[in-house]
Amino acid sequence: MTPSSANDESRRSLLSRRGFVAGAGAVGGVVAGAGAAAAMAGHRDTSNDAVDSGDTIDLDRSVAFYTGLHQAGIETPPQRYCVYMTFDLTSPTTRDLQVLLARWSAAIAQMMAGKPIGTVQPTSGEGVGSDTGEALDIGPSSLTVTLGLGPGIFGPDLGLGHRAPRLLRDLPRLPSDNLDRATTGGDLSLQACADDPQVAYHAVRDLARMGRGVVDTRWTVMGFGRASAGLGQSTPRNLLGFKDGTRNLREPSEFDQYVWLHDDVDWMDGGTYQVARKIRMNIEIWDADRVSDQEHVFGRSKVVGAPLSGTREFDTPDFHARSHGQDDISPVSHIALAAHENNGGIRILRRSYNYTDGINPFGQLDAGLLFIAYLNDPRHFVALQTRLGGSDLLNEYISHIGSAVFAVPPAPKVGGYLGEALFA
Amino acid sequence: MTPSSANDESRRSLLSRRGFVAGAGAVGGVVAGAGAAAAMAGHRDTSNDAVDSGDTIDLDRSVAFYTGLHQAGIETPPQRYCVYMTFDLTSPTTRDLQVLLARWSAAIAQMMAGKPIGTVQPTSGEGVGSDTGEALDIGPSSLTVTLGLGPGIFGPDLGLGHRAPRLLRDLPRLPSDNLDRATTGGDLSLQACADDPQVAYHAVRDLARMGRGVVDTRWTVMGFGRASAGLGQSTPRNLLGFKDGTRNLREPSEFDQYVWLHDDVDWMDGGTYQVARKIRMNIEIWDADRVSDQEHVFGRSKVVGAPLSGTREFDTPDFHARSHGQDDISPVSHIALAAHENNGGIRILRRSYNYTDGINPFGQLDAGLLFIAYLNDPRHFVALQTRLGGSDLLNEYISHIGSAVFAVPPAPKVGGYLGEALFA
Repeated sequence: MTPSSANDESRRSLLSRRGFVAGAGAVGGVVAGAGAAAAMAGHRDTSNDAVDSGDTIDLDRSVAFYTGLHQAGIETPPQRYCVYMTFDLTSPTTRDLQVLLARWSAAIAQMMAGKPIGTVQPTSGEGVGSDTGEALDIGPSSLTVTLGLGPGIFGPDLGLGHRAPRLLRDLPRLPSDNLDRATTGGDLSLQACADDPQVAYHAVRDLARMGRGVVDTRWTVMGFGRASAGLGQSTPRNLLGFKDGTRNLREPSEFDQYVWLHDDVDWMDGGTYQVARKIRMNIEIWDADRVSDQEHVFGRSKVVGAPLSGTREFDTPDFHARSHGQDDISPVSHIALAAHENNGGIRILRRSYNYTDGINPFGQLDAGLLFIAYLNDPRHFVALQTRLGGSDLLNEYISHIGSAVFAVPPAPKVGGYLGEALFA
Repeated sequence: MTPSSANDESRRSLLSRRGFVAGAGAVGGVVAGAGAAAAMAGHRDTSNDAVDSGDTIDLDRSVAFYTGLHQAGIETPPQRYCVYMTFDLTSPTTRDLQVLLARWSAAIAQMMAGKPIGTVQPTSGEGVGSDTGEALDIGPSSLTVTLGLGPGIFGPDLGLGHRAPRLLRDLPRLPSDNLDRATTGGDLSLQACADDPQVAYHAVRDLARMGRGVVDTRWTVMGFGRASAGLGQSTPRNLLGFKDGTRNLREPSEFDQYVWLHDDVDWMDGGTYQVARKIRMNIEIWDADRVSDQEHVFGRSKVVGAPLSGTREFDTPDFHARSHGQDDISPVSHIALAAHENNGGIRILRRSYNYTDGINPFGQLDAGLLFIAYLNDPRHFVALQTRLGGSDLLNEYISHIGSAVFAVPPAPKVGGYLGEALFA
C-alpha cells in the first residue's frame, strides 16, 4: 500500500518540512527499488518527488499579453495568488461591451508589463488618477489577467447570439451542487494571477473601476497557495493537506488536445472554455478523520502523494491492484473517479487555488478550493463532475457552493483587443 | 508643494511601475538639491526613496522563537502576509489555559523552524495526524506567531486578576468607532506572519485545532501586502495607493523607548501591548477623488510619498511651512494629526496589512487595513486615535469596524512557554 510512509515518521518529523518530504521520497525509492525507478522513467526532474524548486519568488518576471494566440494565465505555470471576479453586464448595447473589452485589453497589457494604467498622478494635479497606485513599487510579479465571456453575452439583448461559441451554455444541475446564487454565474470573468497578491488585487480593482456603468461586480474569490502545478513546477497541496494536480496537464501537446479550441466558431480559434467552482471544504471535520481514511478517500498517500497502488508520487495508478483481498485504490476514491482511464480518456486542465473566508457562523474555519478548469469541451467537466458528485468519497467533506462557465477568446495581437473578432 | 510629481508624469508612465518610482525619486532629488540631500543625511540606503529591495522572496528563511526576550513578529521586519485571529476562552480553569499556552508554544517553535507539529501521518497509519499537512513542502517562510492575552484572561473566572498587566483594559469608545461585535475583542490573539500565506494560514489553523475545547475562534483577518516597513525595508502602500509607515519605528533604540515594557508587572518585562483595528476603506469613493485632494487628506504626495512641505519621502515634515498663504500640510491631514511632534512625542509601532473581504452587498469592493500597533502604553493609541477620529480628513473614507487590545508577554527560553511566568 504505502510502504514509504509509516516507518520513519518520528525521525522525519525532526527534519524540516521540506527536508522531511525529500527524505520520505528517498525512502520510498529505496523500498520500491527498480520497479519504481522504471515507473519514473519518462518523467522530468521537476516532477521528481516534488521538492518545490520555487524557494524564491522573483517579482521582476513578466508574461506577454499580445501573443495573438492563447490568452496568458492558462498554460502559464500557476502563479502563487489569484483574484477571480465575475461581472454582470448592465448596459444593453454591444458598443459598450466592445469599448470595455478594448479598454480592458489595453489596461491588462500595461499591468502585465508592470506598468500603471495611464497616470497615478494627473499632470494638472487636479484630476482623478487613472491608476489607483497601490502596485506602483512592486514588479510585474508574473501577472496574467484572463478574460472570459459568459452565456449572457450571447443572450437576446446584444444580438450576438448567432456568433455564440458552440458549447457555451449554463452548466446543468450537478449531483454535488449546493450553489449559492451570490457566488454563481456572471456575464464576464477576470482571473488575475500573480506572484504578489497586491498586484493581482490591484489589477481586478482597477479593471472593475474601469467597468463602472457597463458592468457590476457579481462574485469574487481571492486564492492563495496555488493548488495545481504547471510545467516545471512541483505539486502543491490543497487545504486537505494533500498534493493536488499530480496528473494535471503539463505538456504543450496535451494542451493542444484537451484545452485549445480548433473547430468551434472561427473567432474562438485558439481560445478555450473556463469552468469555475467555489468548493467549500469542511476542514475541521476532515482534520478529525484518521489519515488512513483520508488516504482511502483520495486514493493517494498524504505525505508522498503516491497512488495507493504505488510508492512514488508520479507512479501511474493501478486501479486493478489488490492487496489482502481489497482494492489498493477504492473505485469510489477521488483519483479513481477522476482518472482519464476510467472516463473514456477525458482530461481537463485544473488551475485551482486555496481560499479562506475566515470563520463561519458556527465558529468553524471557513475555507476551500477555488477550482478553475480549462477545457475545449465543457461537457467533459459535466461528465466528470456527474461521476464525482454522485459517488466520490470526498463528498462528505466538500460542498460546491459556486459555479460559472465562460468562453475564453484567444489573445489579441498588438493593436487588437480581447474578443475583437466577435464584433467583426 | 510637490515639485517632483507633476511634470514628467506622461513620460514616466511609459516606464515600469518600479522604474517609474525610482525615476520620480531621482527627479525629486535634482529639484530639491542640497537641501534634500542634507535632510536625507542619517537615513540608511534602504530607505532611500524606497525602491523595494525585496524583488525576490526567500522562503527558506526562518526566525527564532526561544529568544527569552521579546516575541518575534514585532521587531521582525514585516513579512508579506498575515493571518490574525482572536479567541474566546471557554474553559474556566487556569490549568487549561496554562496547558494550552505550553502546547501552543511548542507548536509555534516547530512551525517557525519550518517543521510540522508532530506527525502528519501517524506511525500506525490508523491515527489522526497532529499536523494537517498543507505546509509540508514549503520552507519556514520567515513565519512568526505572536501571542496576546486579552483583558478577559484577568477577569474574575481565572483568579489571575492580581497579576494583570497594569495598563491592560478594554479600549474606551473612540470618536471613529463603528465597531461590529463580530470583529471585536477576544481573550487571546494570534498574529501569524509569513512570506507565504499558506504557511501563515496553516499555523493559525493548526493552533485553533489544538485549542478546541479550551478556546473558540472569535474573529479573523487575512492580510496581504504588508502596509508597514521595518528595519531595512522600503515603505509599502496601503489600498488607498499611498505609502504607509514612512515615519514608523525602525531602530532598536526606538523599540526600547516606545514598545518594550520595562516597569509594568514583572512577568511582562520585555513584553508589550498590541492594539488591533479592522479599518474598512471606502476605496471606490476614494478612487473617485482628485489626487490633489487625496494628497491634501494624507499630507503627502501620492507617487513619491514626500510630505507636502518637502520633495522626498524621508524629508521631515515641516508643519509650519506655508506657500501662497496656505499651510503646505493641512493641520487636519493624517500625518499632521498623527505626528509625534504634535502629540507630545508619542510614537507607536505600526505593523499593518491590507485586506479584502471581496464585494459588499452593494456590489462595491470591500477592502481595508488590518491595523496592528505595538506600544508600551495603550493610552498612547487612545490619545492618537481620539485626535485622528475627531478631525482626520481621512475619516470620510474609512471606518473602524473591529478592535481589540492584548498584553503580549515576552518570549520564553528553551524549555519554557509563553506566559509561563504568569502562573509562577
